Amino acid sequence: MSATTLDIVAIGNAIVDVLARADEAFIAAEGVAKGSMRLIDTETAEGLYGRMAPGIEASGGSAANTVAGIAALGGRCGFVGQVADDQLGKVFAHDIRALGVDFRTAPRSDEPPTARCLILVTDDGQRTMNTFLGAAQYLPAESVDAEMIASAAILYLEGYLWDPEQPRAAMRAAIRIARENGRKVAFTLSDAFCIERHRGDFQTLIDRGEIDILFANETEIRSLTQIDDFEAAVAAVAGRVPLLVVTRGDEGAIAVQGGERVAVPAEPIARVVDTTGAGDLFAAGFLAGQAQGRSVGDCLTMGAIAAAEVISHFGARPQADLKALVAQRLG
Amino acid sequence: MSATTLDIVAIGNAIVDVLARADEAFIAAEGVAKGSMRLIDTETAEGLYGRMAPGIEASGGSAANTVAGIAALGGRCGFVGQVADDQLGKVFAHDIRALGVDFRTAPRSDEPPTARCLILVTDDGQRTMNTFLGAAQYLPAESVDAEMIASAAILYLEGYLWDPEQPRAAMRAAIRIARENGRKVAFTLSDAFCIERHRGDFQTLIDRGEIDILFANETEIRSLTQIDDFEAAVAAVAGRVPLLVVTRGDEGAIAVQGGERVAVPAEPIARVVDTTGAGDLFAAGFLAGQAQGRSVGDCLTMGAIAAAEVISHFGARPQADLKALVAQRLG
Repeated sequence: MSATTLDIVAIGNAIVDVLARADEAFIAAEGVAKGSMRLIDTETAEGLYGRMAPGIEASGGSAANTVAGIAALGGRCGFVGQVADDQLGKVFAHDIRALGVDFRTAPRSDEPPTARCLILVTDDGQRTMNTFLGAAQYLPAESVDAEMIASAAILYLEGYLWDPEQPRAAMRAAIRIARENGRKVAFTLSDAFCIERHRGDFQTLIDRGEIDILFANETEIRSLTQIDDFEAAVAAVAGRVPLLVVTRGDEGAIAVQGGERVAVPAEPIARVVDTTGAGDLFAAGFLAGQAQGRSVGDCLTMGAIAAAEVISHFGARPQADLKALVAQRLG
Repeated sequence: MSATTLDIVAIGNAIVDVLARADEAFIAAEGVAKGSMRLIDTETAEGLYGRMAPGIEASGGSAANTVAGIAALGGRCGFVGQVADDQLGKVFAHDIRALGVDFRTAPRSDEPPTARCLILVTDDGQRTMNTFLGAAQYLPAESVDAEMIASAAILYLEGYLWDPEQPRAAMRAAIRIARENGRKVAFTLSDAFCIERHRGDFQTLIDRGEIDILFANETEIRSLTQIDDFEAAVAAVAGRVPLLVVTRGDEGAIAVQGGERVAVPAEPIARVVDTTGAGDLFAAGFLAGQAQGRSVGDCLTMGAIAAAEVISHFGARPQADLKALVAQRLG
């Protein structure tokens, strides 16, 4: 097992977010489940965009947000994801590289355009995501650079990317490379609807021992196990992965490792402006803590700090100095 | 003189802003004057973008921001400006139309792409703007719809648009149409460097009586008159335009109409996050007040409210409910 040159390499949807305010009536009229993520086609994307309020555009994508957070915390990161050769693709590439992330996936010159996620943010800070996968769904298995995967201590994957066929194959290839090189694999379940579509695959990944660190929120752990009681759902998964991390919104988060359970409260926050990226940034803080060799409790606290920062403003990437926030708290 | 169907029609640069944090050292290294606007070419834009921190994209453009604010305050608006047929052009068109603004200028299919403004925001909230004019500089005079100009009570023009030749001709044509139809012309001086480039033209517009409402800030009124003393500079202009409005940052704003001077303080604000759009939104509040037939004092207060809202967050377009903010204050 050679030395690592990266802390984390992630494979994820390369997406630009379009964030706009919406009221509950608008969400209802669009027929979407508030707080969820759905995949939409070109026609639906154009129709919904036409009806949406004015927005702001910012780089997004679940695993890409996580990598952005880890890089902001000083971690050495790589990212693999497919953009098109267009303006939004250039925005995505600029933003992730500006953070020092090693992003080499060549843009795709054919249609469709770069993926975008139309995010409706309600007054309660909840976000409802409508994802047009565009170029992201054509990430080829060949884009997985074996040397890059082998060079990173942890391979991080998002469940969302399990939807399209090509990236799924790319992720399976990456898992194989990571395991062959003695690296850890971290996986986020992403979304309850996503789990419904791929429950069998996700269970198999877990039971074959292909996942070392599993991230979920309360809804997702229930969906995965189809057990409504939170504690029972956690118990049903905890023994099957070396490290399980479950976020619980304003109730904080827990981690279970080797039968030992650690819990932290949520960080205090003046106002929840926009929960977009909360789970992604929690994972960022946690994984950055892992890369720094911190205790599971401190990793959870770093997750909570990063999540609190991102929900206190519009958009899914950190705006404040995360390193300073963590240093204030944990030294 | 027929009835108006619009309160304001504006002609301006159709720009998408790219906002990113920067420190003072970065601004100095780029060799730009903090707080100013400079025009940059493709090569400089690409170089600077490559060095900039991760950003967010949001529709901008000075007069377009003003129109967005007026529409948010319930005004009936039209906008004329040139985008390209690309992703950023679609973003610009979506955002302005989503506010109910009548925007009909056909996108341009040739190079260059839609204009963008690379905005460096320092910790003190000051913004430094680097504008790549792109498609915006090719706004043809034919895009000025005579019927639309004639239908609006006020034609609003931005000084920035005086830089490129074609839009300058378009604005001259629009002024003619507005005056022939007994409409008012409002003009913002935009920026001290812009005034240096066009002082003669701006003085001529004023002295020919082609401007009914002139907007400036302290630096601009000094640059226009080349008089360093603020009061002397105001006195040198006040008699030459029916209505002069001068913003003074945290000292509030003044208006002089028919020899009578009114002043308002700045609205209190917790923290100046980003001054991008402050002047644009001040003009929006003021002009929306004019459209509602309010007193000059109330128009100034509306300007101060709209400016305070926009500097309390990242980006140049309102995020809070401006109508409600004004109603709370003025009823």
